[in-house]
Amino acid sequence: MNEAGNSSFNVQSMHGDARRGTLSTMHGEVQTPVFMPIATVGALKTLLPSEVANLGASIILGNTYHLLLRPGEEALRRTGGVRPFMGWEGPMLTDSGGYQVFSLSKLNKTDDDGVTFQSHIDGSTHRLTAERSMEIQDAIGSSIRMQFDDVAAGNSTRERYEEAMERSLRWAARSKKRFDEIVGESTDAERPQLFGIVQGGTHEDLRARSLQGLIDIGFDGYAIGGLSVGESREDTFRIVRSLAQQMPKDRPRYFMGGGMPEEIVAYVSFGVDMFDCVLPTRNARHGSLFVWKGNPKNAVREAFRRAQAGESDVRIADALYEKIQITNERFTADDGCIDSESSAETSRQFSRAYLRHLFQTGETLGLRLATLQNLSFYLQMMQELRECTANPL
Amino acid sequence: MNEAGNSSFNVQSMHGDARRGTLSTMHGEVQTPVFMPIATVGALKTLLPSEVANLGASIILGNTYHLLLRPGEEALRRTGGVRPFMGWEGPMLTDSGGYQVFSLSKLNKTDDDGVTFQSHIDGSTHRLTAERSMEIQDAIGSSIRMQFDDVAAGNSTRERYEEAMERSLRWAARSKKRFDEIVGESTDAERPQLFGIVQGGTHEDLRARSLQGLIDIGFDGYAIGGLSVGESREDTFRIVRSLAQQMPKDRPRYFMGGGMPEEIVAYVSFGVDMFDCVLPTRNARHGSLFVWKGNPKNAVREAFRRAQAGESDVRIADALYEKIQITNERFTADDGCIDSESSAETSRQFSRAYLRHLFQTGETLGLRLATLQNLSFYLQMMQELRECTANPL
Repeated sequence: MNEAGNSSFNVQSMHGDARRGTLSTMHGEVQTPVFMPIATVGALKTLLPSEVANLGASIILGNTYHLLLRPGEEALRRTGGVRPFMGWEGPMLTDSGGYQVFSLSKLNKTDDDGVTFQSHIDGSTHRLTAERSMEIQDAIGSSIRMQFDDVAAGNSTRERYEEAMERSLRWAARSKKRFDEIVGESTDAERPQLFGIVQGGTHEDLRARSLQGLIDIGFDGYAIGGLSVGESREDTFRIVRSLAQQMPKDRPRYFMGGGMPEEIVAYVSFGVDMFDCVLPTRNARHGSLFVWKGNPKNAVREAFRRAQAGESDVRIADALYEKIQITNERFTADDGCIDSESSAETSRQFSRAYLRHLFQTGETLGLRLATLQNLSFYLQMMQELRECTANPL
Repeated sequence: MNEAGNSSFNVQSMHGDARRGTLSTMHGEVQTPVFMPIATVGALKTLLPSEVANLGASIILGNTYHLLLRPGEEALRRTGGVRPFMGWEGPMLTDSGGYQVFSLSKLNKTDDDGVTFQSHIDGSTHRLTAERSMEIQDAIGSSIRMQFDDVAAGNSTRERYEEAMERSLRWAARSKKRFDEIVGESTDAERPQLFGIVQGGTHEDLRARSLQGLIDIGFDGYAIGGLSVGESREDTFRIVRSLAQQMPKDRPRYFMGGGMPEEIVAYVSFGVDMFDCVLPTRNARHGSLFVWKGNPKNAVREAFRRAQAGESDVRIADALYEKIQITNERFTADDGCIDSESSAETSRQFSRAYLRHLFQTGETLGLRLATLQNLSFYLQMMQELRECTANPL
């Protein structure tokens, strides 16, 4: 039970700081640690929702910025949200739109009230505020929604990190207020959830102040934002480890926008529960595949052991996977299957030579097979991490 | 039973001139009339072989020109042919490479012995003769192979049509000779089959001479080539109707590279058994969909009735389908499913508004859903045409 009196998140067991939990949402349960595949505009690249579910995904992520531009708020309200529109029946988390306004829009201007920006598609002008973000996420109909935040660019000055963090806290309060107006303050199981986002760059004191400010407002879950933006891996690990120690034990912890498999294993060992990342799909698009090093159960167990022992990200990765570039000449006559250990049937069925051939000839089936390989790798890794953390408390 | 003493093709029933048959190949049986989806380089666009089979495809078509360039003869021999390479277990027909040498290669020069051409991909020089075509099709490992032919461009002079037809006959004899050397002259069920191709443009006398020349050589099946290349629909219908009357009754008849659904219905009514066409997949790529006009059984029955009554292609089409451009503004808020009558589950599951959204946002899932719609339309049409022709002799 937590401050708000509900029990939407339950930790069933721990292994060191790592947690095995269950997150209950209005659209179904999510077993954590969990990876959320990204359905940017309401589509999981080449895959059907049923296929993504079959790979083991229980929750997916939608991007508010993209969905606001296309299909737009009106279409989302008409169809009852993006979940029925795209045929995904399980839970969905949406970001606030803030991050992508900064990274994708043509022009953007932030003031204390919000952000005005031009669409990267047609140059049309839009305005996003904490209140509007809540309204659009409501139109999207997501199960878990994120506060609107001000994201400082990587390698900003301490002053800029502090400004963005303080502004994000003010926007957090406004997000919470508008969210409560929209969904009501009940703790009903039918209610969507709202997560706060910890900012503050690589400064531990700013991060701590940010977290405390968010806890004072009170959220259903807490996210770590503004990392994986160019800082050193050591800095990321340091901030995540220290924050995970301070974050409420009875709420889910979500690391936003990261990362490589070895990072996820490390963050799970620090006590983080939720992840999303473009890497599996983006790599697939370029023919870059994550392939298991031997048996997945053994590989993840060893990687998890190394993470708990504080070994480096390189050492963790080394236990987990080989990254192969399928377009490479050396796969021309490789008749072995894509990955004999994969949970994706297609990866055990089709050869590396065939997948290379599909990339060489520009056949979209290649993109589909590569996406299945990489997504299944991430999802299978999470399944094994849940096993690793399933020891009794 | 036919001249060669085998019975690889059996006509079970007829309805007017239309035939309901069974074609036995070394890789399985094919129920005719049949449509063969095109797996150009060994991939059916966005689809897995199992999905194409589930839509009702029993035989697919591979392109010798494309497969010769990529993955190339060596890779094809190494993997035991393109069928195991791509995971297709059923029968496959290959064209001879001739047509695509003319339509795709950078430079090509025909002499009496064959064609020298430059790859459209890397400019490398290749040579194709009747003998080489047989050898490459053997490396591809197709169940049904086509003779090498000289294809006159549409709107050629009678002299050029005659030259191409005579040369094709000489190449037919050479194709047969080399084919027999490769596979042996047995009539074994394990033997691949070789089809001859009738040429002669829109000149009935040239067509008749071509057909007789081919019959004298003796083939497992006979194809109508060199049509759907710009001539009038009336000319095509006239030639196909007249040829179908003359073609051996105990051998399969294959119309190459055509066409629109109404053409296929007409040619079936004339007595043609086999078809292939890029239209369903090419249209899908551009968001152009064939959508059933009401119940498929009734639609095809009515179209078939009109074809048998000699009505125009426009009247036949009118009974069958509506062609919709899914990217059109008018589908923005169309929450109806893509095609409620489709045999493709995804077409009954996803809305037109969603499919339009996928095309607008460039998501490859849109290509997949559109391909499923169009391919299922053609395959379902063939299924209903087989019902139409299943009346007893």
